[in-house]
Amino acid sequence: MYGLRTLIGTSVISLIILTTPAAADDGYGLWLRSNIQSVRQVEVSRSGNSPTLMLAEAELRRALPADMPPVMVTTAAAPGIAALRLPFDGLGDEGYLVRSVTLNGRPVVLVAGNSDRGTLYGAFALIRHLATGHSAQAIALRSAPKVKLRVLNHWDNLDGSVERGYAGQSLWDWWTLPDFHDPRYTDYARANASIGINGTVLNNVNAKADSLTAPYIAKAAALADIFRPWGIRVYLSVRFSAPIELGGLKTADPRDPAVAAWWKAKADEIYRAIPDFGGFLVKANSEGQPGPRDYGASHADGANMLAAALRDHGGIVMWRAFVYAETDPEDRAKQAYTEFKPLDGKFADNVLVQVKNGAIDFQPREPFHPLFGAMPRTPLMIEFQITKEYLGFATHLAYLGPLFTEVLDARTGWKPGETVADVVDGEAEHHRLTGMAGVANIGRDRDWSGSTFNQANWYAFGRLAWDPALSAEAIARAWAAQTFGNDPQVIDTVTAMMMGSREAMVDYTGALGLSHLMATGHHYGPGPWVSDLARPEWNPVYYHRADAAGIGFDRTAKGSNAVGQYAEHVAKAFANPATTPESMLLWFHHLPWDRRMASGRSLWEELVTHYDRGVAYVAGMQRQWDMLRPKIDDERWQKTATYLGIQAREARWWRDASLAYWMSVNHRPLPAGVRPPEHDLTWYQARQFPHAPGQAH
Amino acid sequence: MYGLRTLIGTSVISLIILTTPAAADDGYGLWLRSNIQSVRQVEVSRSGNSPTLMLAEAELRRALPADMPPVMVTTAAAPGIAALRLPFDGLGDEGYLVRSVTLNGRPVVLVAGNSDRGTLYGAFALIRHLATGHSAQAIALRSAPKVKLRVLNHWDNLDGSVERGYAGQSLWDWWTLPDFHDPRYTDYARANASIGINGTVLNNVNAKADSLTAPYIAKAAALADIFRPWGIRVYLSVRFSAPIELGGLKTADPRDPAVAAWWKAKADEIYRAIPDFGGFLVKANSEGQPGPRDYGASHADGANMLAAALRDHGGIVMWRAFVYAETDPEDRAKQAYTEFKPLDGKFADNVLVQVKNGAIDFQPREPFHPLFGAMPRTPLMIEFQITKEYLGFATHLAYLGPLFTEVLDARTGWKPGETVADVVDGEAEHHRLTGMAGVANIGRDRDWSGSTFNQANWYAFGRLAWDPALSAEAIARAWAAQTFGNDPQVIDTVTAMMMGSREAMVDYTGALGLSHLMATGHHYGPGPWVSDLARPEWNPVYYHRADAAGIGFDRTAKGSNAVGQYAEHVAKAFANPATTPESMLLWFHHLPWDRRMASGRSLWEELVTHYDRGVAYVAGMQRQWDMLRPKIDDERWQKTATYLGIQAREARWWRDASLAYWMSVNHRPLPAGVRPPEHDLTWYQARQFPHAPGQAH
Repeated sequence: MYGLRTLIGTSVISLIILTTPAAADDGYGLWLRSNIQSVRQVEVSRSGNSPTLMLAEAELRRALPADMPPVMVTTAAAPGIAALRLPFDGLGDEGYLVRSVTLNGRPVVLVAGNSDRGTLYGAFALIRHLATGHSAQAIALRSAPKVKLRVLNHWDNLDGSVERGYAGQSLWDWWTLPDFHDPRYTDYARANASIGINGTVLNNVNAKADSLTAPYIAKAAALADIFRPWGIRVYLSVRFSAPIELGGLKTADPRDPAVAAWWKAKADEIYRAIPDFGGFLVKANSEGQPGPRDYGASHADGANMLAAALRDHGGIVMWRAFVYAETDPEDRAKQAYTEFKPLDGKFADNVLVQVKNGAIDFQPREPFHPLFGAMPRTPLMIEFQITKEYLGFATHLAYLGPLFTEVLDARTGWKPGETVADVVDGEAEHHRLTGMAGVANIGRDRDWSGSTFNQANWYAFGRLAWDPALSAEAIARAWAAQTFGNDPQVIDTVTAMMMGSREAMVDYTGALGLSHLMATGHHYGPGPWVSDLARPEWNPVYYHRADAAGIGFDRTAKGSNAVGQYAEHVAKAFANPATTPESMLLWFHHLPWDRRMASGRSLWEELVTHYDRGVAYVAGMQRQWDMLRPKIDDERWQKTATYLGIQAREARWWRDASLAYWMSVNHRPLPAGVRPPEHDLTWYQARQFPHAPGQAH
Repeated sequence: MYGLRTLIGTSVISLIILTTPAAADDGYGLWLRSNIQSVRQVEVSRSGNSPTLMLAEAELRRALPADMPPVMVTTAAAPGIAALRLPFDGLGDEGYLVRSVTLNGRPVVLVAGNSDRGTLYGAFALIRHLATGHSAQAIALRSAPKVKLRVLNHWDNLDGSVERGYAGQSLWDWWTLPDFHDPRYTDYARANASIGINGTVLNNVNAKADSLTAPYIAKAAALADIFRPWGIRVYLSVRFSAPIELGGLKTADPRDPAVAAWWKAKADEIYRAIPDFGGFLVKANSEGQPGPRDYGASHADGANMLAAALRDHGGIVMWRAFVYAETDPEDRAKQAYTEFKPLDGKFADNVLVQVKNGAIDFQPREPFHPLFGAMPRTPLMIEFQITKEYLGFATHLAYLGPLFTEVLDARTGWKPGETVADVVDGEAEHHRLTGMAGVANIGRDRDWSGSTFNQANWYAFGRLAWDPALSAEAIARAWAAQTFGNDPQVIDTVTAMMMGSREAMVDYTGALGLSHLMATGHHYGPGPWVSDLARPEWNPVYYHRADAAGIGFDRTAKGSNAVGQYAEHVAKAFANPATTPESMLLWFHHLPWDRRMASGRSLWEELVTHYDRGVAYVAGMQRQWDMLRPKIDDERWQKTATYLGIQAREARWWRDASLAYWMSVNHRPLPAGVRPPEHDLTWYQARQFPHAPGQAH
């Protein structure tokens, strides 16, 4: 009760009391918990009156410990700052500098950027710096984002459902917008700003034309007004055929002047309501969405027509490369490259092509997408999926930091040392426009993301979009400290749990480069046996190609030659099983079950070993979490413990169902001492979940 | 900061600090706000160790002010209590007695029932007594519920959507049940217990058979375990054709022994998981649901077959009388009576027939349903709709207490003085089983009901189910005090706003007995012109029958003779416009626009006056709420103010659209000085809301 005595008789505005670790915490506060540990407040002054600077000041007042030196919130251009000759050059619009300096003879911590947005990011950086256990003395932080557009993609529908959402309804209550401004909208913007996210696409890429009608533009404008002081721009997904559905035109052909004029007028209408509107995200000619190919025009024709409508306003187009055609017999993994590579250099300069991290669809592991590095004249935005469509929905603990960094750190082979991150952040080709998109895992659930640990994936995406060179482990440690407090045992244990969790999910769902083994529709649980869906590439058997002799998809020159889409020496490595990382082996090769692996085990034995390793890892997380019980508040501890229990049961389910199926195909016994599946294959095949969350209506 | 000084140096377990009225309050706490005003805790002792008694003790510790005498939580049978010779007789299983007594020479407030559930209700009664400004001295409360089954009906679907729900997704996260026990489930049970609700039907009456599969029974059992200590039983809506869909039978004919056996086995399975399972709610042969009529069997045949399956376990069937057939040309208002009245006396003794308050469907005003009093040998459960399907969804402020009591207080005419409440609470015929059902307005929104004022409708339903003789105004006052604190200005103003709000909604949507004038599908906003729907009784024009000469539905002997379904002298009154209350005039009569009303105005002028009155009332609520700004926390004040703004705009919309339409029919000018509609009729007819909430998928 430190500080209470000093209170009596003094004038206090507010009083915050330490709660014990065991108190309930519903997770709403994310990683932005108040650190106030006494009732004395740190001195914070501000030079400048923009709403953004005031927010920066308020954040610092709310979070800084009392033993801080005075803090000064300002911008590079403020009086007295220039004289300090601080290194603001190269920080751009959004970078920050947080520095212990002497001002008018007093020690002060200066928080400043070239713009007020930079200052706000600096404030959050200072809060993070202190919350992760660093000293309040001799502070010298300096950073600028390496990626320009750091954007969430909400797959939120206008009826409040969220496609592949596992955290409740859409945050956006379209029905009460634009009138009602849920305080949660502000808290959402604040959380994003705290990790550097500066844009949000409000609606599903499977878009309804309605989102472009006047009432919905007004609703989006209300959100934009709330987000603006936090440095966040609003974008919309658009339906390519909207000129037909809303405008009464007979065509949406991008080469038709009436179509272009319709989009131009629509863009003008949007910018009247949202002067800093970000632009459009487009899913075209993919999974049933309309697009320019319907008219024999190219993706570039479509993108450039929209880009022209937005150009004068400073808006951009994010055009997705996620295309595969039901009529195309080509290996699905190849189709995006085949379609987009020839268009390199044909896109307008306010278009980014948005490419998923891998060539299929957000599987637990995929090799990096062959388009990275292959379209040097086009800015490629990378798209990650933060929501865990294929990684256990809300309940399984799978920290995606290592998934993100594995792709970002991959060498493209097109230039010496060039990584996917270099392509994405523009380093490789000095693109002006750069971007990273994450499919949001945010909903109206009280804890935002369906579980405490899912919050870490939102956090990691934001941090990596700011700096793709950060390590997944450093991010995990910072998140753990900000989320659970700065106890070394908690941070070490939580970080350890997180760092292996995605690999465990790969292991218990299907390792060694297998993919797309999940059940149909909802994508939950195992379905490696599924072979009866209308389109070949919807069936798991299309991907694993297991038979009595072997398993895996031959993507070498003998097979689909998808390896040929990579740069020469990368292609060469992937073309040879001996030089293909074992983690991606069956993605590229069809191999006999008896093939000898690095471990000395056969491929079949190795696969079994991975399944067991994944199951064991989850049991290990349960033990680790149990040990933290005294140090975590009861509500978050209990929910996580329950979810780990679900995960343990379901990891076993994945393993058992998968083994039962593989054995039905390869007719091989399990290695000695390996526990047999609990049920026979038909039992697993009969399981159904008609009301699983996240399915579109 | 009273009490702080005394704190220093003493040992305290918890410390709660008064917040200023302006602090944010997100409404999660409902009417169960903590009243603790100092850090000294009242002394609470308990005799007995049941979980329910422990909850009663915890509630009192949490809520009682420090200046209370010691409180004793016990039951009638506890040692030492019998000697006090207190009047426990007649309190039954659920009644309570809260009494200032002297025990062992000390003044003590005794909180006790014949059962621990009674004690829990007593604890909440004491908390309410004090929170509404009564003295802590000389307490003498004694009450027993007049209605046995006080049940919420959740129209919650297994996919998380809520039919006619305007407060977010379903509270039940079926996906993570039975593993995860959201703390909110407990808070839900607590809120219900605090107002006497003792049952909850978990799933939509438009039921899926899946809810009777083993996984969903386990999920329901998990909820039942959480609710049990709060005195709340779980019920399920069942799909009548489940024996076909789940059991593989060829029929669901209730007279088929295999069908009966299937239900018996299913009931046994449920009771193994939920020993105190309440029973089934059934919507049969209504709006496309399957039922016994599909096989030529009667509703009684169907209900009794299910009742037989439940009987040995003590379960009951709630069989809905809400039926109307697409093939039946009879006045829709007559069909339930026509179908059910002949079945009086044919239902098993563990069946209740659940009758909506009026004969159509939860309109802002309907005359009481003619079945009340007309089936003396059958327990009739009344069904109210708490969710505001036809009363402005979440955003319009409409307190339903007066709607509920208007029906409950109505004289049936079948016996001298008999009211609908007498029929419902069993007074009239001494039925053992009695019940009141309310279609819940509860969802996963933080404030549970979509708005603070909607919480009052949940509260009022519970209070009236306990005691149908309570006044709507007394309930409003108590709710206001418990929800906003005991400031007389706040209570007076809030109560005044509430008490006229439902009548205002009647006025601005269509007064004088008009009904069913809303737009199609979502039921939001005006649509009196709608005439193109497939079934005649889906069209507003079916209900108002307006033409150049007059308006209203002739339900006298010259028309559909629905009046003939009422008891003789009620029928006689309704048959004559002169003796029909003006508030229900056009429900029963088709009358000329020129008809002279009690006010001296013509019918047309009177209708216009009502529209204007409704609009003006909303403006008045805005002014009243503005005056309370200094006394209400900012978050609840702001949200309510915003919603009142929406309501003001939409009241005007209802008025203007309706007037434009009536004028297009009657070709009459507006009375002098009356403001014309803002737009022409076609403007109103063109408005569309494709993504309005609450629609089934």
